[in-house]
Amino acid sequence: MRAEIIAVGSEMLTPDRVDTNSLFITDRLNTIGIDVIAKSVAADDRGLLGGQLRLALTRADVIVFTGGLGPTSDDVTREAVADALGVPLDEDPLTIERLERRFARRGVPMPAINRRQALVPRGAEVIVNEYGTAPGLLFERGGTVIALLPGPPREMKPMFEGLVRGRLAGLTGGWGIFRRVLKTTGRPESQIEEVVQPIYARWASAPAPIQTTILATPGQIELHLAVCAANDAEARVVLDAATGEIAGALGPTLFATDTRRLEEVVGDMLRERTLWIATAESCTGGLLASRLTDVPGSSAYVERGVVCYSNRAKTELLGVPDAMLREHGAVSEPVARAMACGIRERAGTDLGVAITGIAGPSGGTPAKPVGTVVVALAWAGAERVRTLWFPGDREPVKFHASQAALDMVRRHLLKADG
Amino acid sequence: MRAEIIAVGSEMLTPDRVDTNSLFITDRLNTIGIDVIAKSVAADDRGLLGGQLRLALTRADVIVFTGGLGPTSDDVTREAVADALGVPLDEDPLTIERLERRFARRGVPMPAINRRQALVPRGAEVIVNEYGTAPGLLFERGGTVIALLPGPPREMKPMFEGLVRGRLAGLTGGWGIFRRVLKTTGRPESQIEEVVQPIYARWASAPAPIQTTILATPGQIELHLAVCAANDAEARVVLDAATGEIAGALGPTLFATDTRRLEEVVGDMLRERTLWIATAESCTGGLLASRLTDVPGSSAYVERGVVCYSNRAKTELLGVPDAMLREHGAVSEPVARAMACGIRERAGTDLGVAITGIAGPSGGTPAKPVGTVVVALAWAGAERVRTLWFPGDREPVKFHASQAALDMVRRHLLKADG
Repeated sequence: MRAEIIAVGSEMLTPDRVDTNSLFITDRLNTIGIDVIAKSVAADDRGLLGGQLRLALTRADVIVFTGGLGPTSDDVTREAVADALGVPLDEDPLTIERLERRFARRGVPMPAINRRQALVPRGAEVIVNEYGTAPGLLFERGGTVIALLPGPPREMKPMFEGLVRGRLAGLTGGWGIFRRVLKTTGRPESQIEEVVQPIYARWASAPAPIQTTILATPGQIELHLAVCAANDAEARVVLDAATGEIAGALGPTLFATDTRRLEEVVGDMLRERTLWIATAESCTGGLLASRLTDVPGSSAYVERGVVCYSNRAKTELLGVPDAMLREHGAVSEPVARAMACGIRERAGTDLGVAITGIAGPSGGTPAKPVGTVVVALAWAGAERVRTLWFPGDREPVKFHASQAALDMVRRHLLKADG
Repeated sequence: MRAEIIAVGSEMLTPDRVDTNSLFITDRLNTIGIDVIAKSVAADDRGLLGGQLRLALTRADVIVFTGGLGPTSDDVTREAVADALGVPLDEDPLTIERLERRFARRGVPMPAINRRQALVPRGAEVIVNEYGTAPGLLFERGGTVIALLPGPPREMKPMFEGLVRGRLAGLTGGWGIFRRVLKTTGRPESQIEEVVQPIYARWASAPAPIQTTILATPGQIELHLAVCAANDAEARVVLDAATGEIAGALGPTLFATDTRRLEEVVGDMLRERTLWIATAESCTGGLLASRLTDVPGSSAYVERGVVCYSNRAKTELLGVPDAMLREHGAVSEPVARAMACGIRERAGTDLGVAITGIAGPSGGTPAKPVGTVVVALAWAGAERVRTLWFPGDREPVKFHASQAALDMVRRHLLKADG
């Protein structure tokens, strides 16, 4: 079943406000197996709302409006919906009575303006609002359910909750949508897609079809799986099998099948193996250490870090030879290796990880353009070093570089296990 | 003029994701006097996108799509728009060439799948993407401008900025909404509100009324001013006067009246005065150094940083006496002062700044609860130290602490001038 959500209000069309009602509504609809296929925010205007409703009627089984049910002339959701459905508005005497009682309880007469809130499009059912003056309205039109709810969350939420448990729950027989996110790093989106495409083409036509979306964020590609199932246990069986299949195809590129970030995965691995780590950073300027120490409990495996922005700091803090810096430049594999070994030795840790690079916007050369990054890892008796190039500005380059360094640690620990 | 924004992507129809691209786009459109009348999020589905476009064509002068221009079969914006406008898709050889060059720079062949990104609906103009593989597309149809932009903000923003300055700026003859953001730090929202409330009550009824909003973010309270004016110069006169009034009332609490972040303001001050700085961090784990080095050109004033997570690192890297750590504890004013002096001496810089604290969730005591942070600054012949307490989890505490340290540097430099 497919739902569409329409939030009404010009104030949500400014540069610093977002509609959050739809997140609650989506969550509640998903739990009973109803998918949200579109949502919109429209200004307080009858034409705009009517147009959006007519479009929604062509594609959704459940249409939820929030907002625009207040008493002022700005509030036009009732009128717009009645117009679009071609029905008149009638004043509902029961609602008038309820409003008058509500105002009387507060010791004031009902303002004339509030009579508008008792207008009901013919054929609609009134939903009592326990927390405010705007009643909700509910239609069923040729198999489509249309709900009009007030905008304030503390009025909308209990009203919608009642609707989900009552009217809407029956529509899908208790089925729900269950999700899982699989996170990968170290390979570009198109490569991931190539590997998983044949798998999820098969899933889409399975008896319990799994919907998949690929989401690319800097340094990380996520696969979002969603399955429709009768309950959590059933969903878990399907999602576990799907996760296993993806894990087999992607190998170590897959770093999490739960909500953990890369720094948490690496932290958990270090803690389980009781290993200590120290960092030496140039272009990332402390971001790698900061991400490692974002994780609660990281003082059990992070010993120290240094940010050696100047060449002098690289020599003094890490023992990188002056001659090496002169010969190869600060952004080079020998220097990255010397940084990793230097921090490991001086900190006395199991692992030393180092990053040097050109974050930009200046400092690039044809041989080493902006975005060139060298990461290195040192452990007992050996090192590994890689030169990489990342696109974008200073901050994405810093993030990508820290992600590559974390991933180098993770892959090393995986290999060390095998 | 009326605009509609359509964000494409099933992942934004889940209970925990919102579209934020539309906020940036709204802000830029408002600046040139274009109002956003509706915005929507639609799943990756040709039918849905085509329907929304056909509706938008009946009511908007500018239609902006974001997302769905990637290389995978999920990415259907190109196809949906071509369908709805009734034009075929042609492969653009120039775009193919540009994509191949981009992949070649990274030393990999272009995956076959990326050819899809070179498909151009006939009649559309290609907008080069400097930061990713998905080119933008631009149509003009009977007075309506339709722009298709990539979803990732760092690709979309520069592309849209270019479009606003170029193609769209002429449409409205300059009349627009002009905004300014004033940023403060070091005082709570309620104190800021008390000072500015009487001022902006007066503004609201002025001949050129200024709308104001207070926005509280961690470690920072912002005042957002908006004024409607015929052109930039007119708006600037009104906003400059308003800014002057607020600056007078808030003094050094106001740190920026432009878009600069606190680390940029501090960076500019250090560069102008040709001063060098070095950092010593415990609980912030490198965040302070990372923020300082987020600023392009920061290698001209950041010499080094150390993250001394263990007590041993505090002694070895900064010369904090063992006895002092034992007597006062790592989170104490003597230790913070010794850290600031230690890093300044060893790095040979003008300033040394240090942070030690308890970021949590564990490690708190009744005398030093989670959120206790000590920041210290050392300069030639003197130091300053402050003990603070911040609410929240580990990450907000880290951010607040780095903000307080940056602000201590800023206020010191202001005073040193006076």
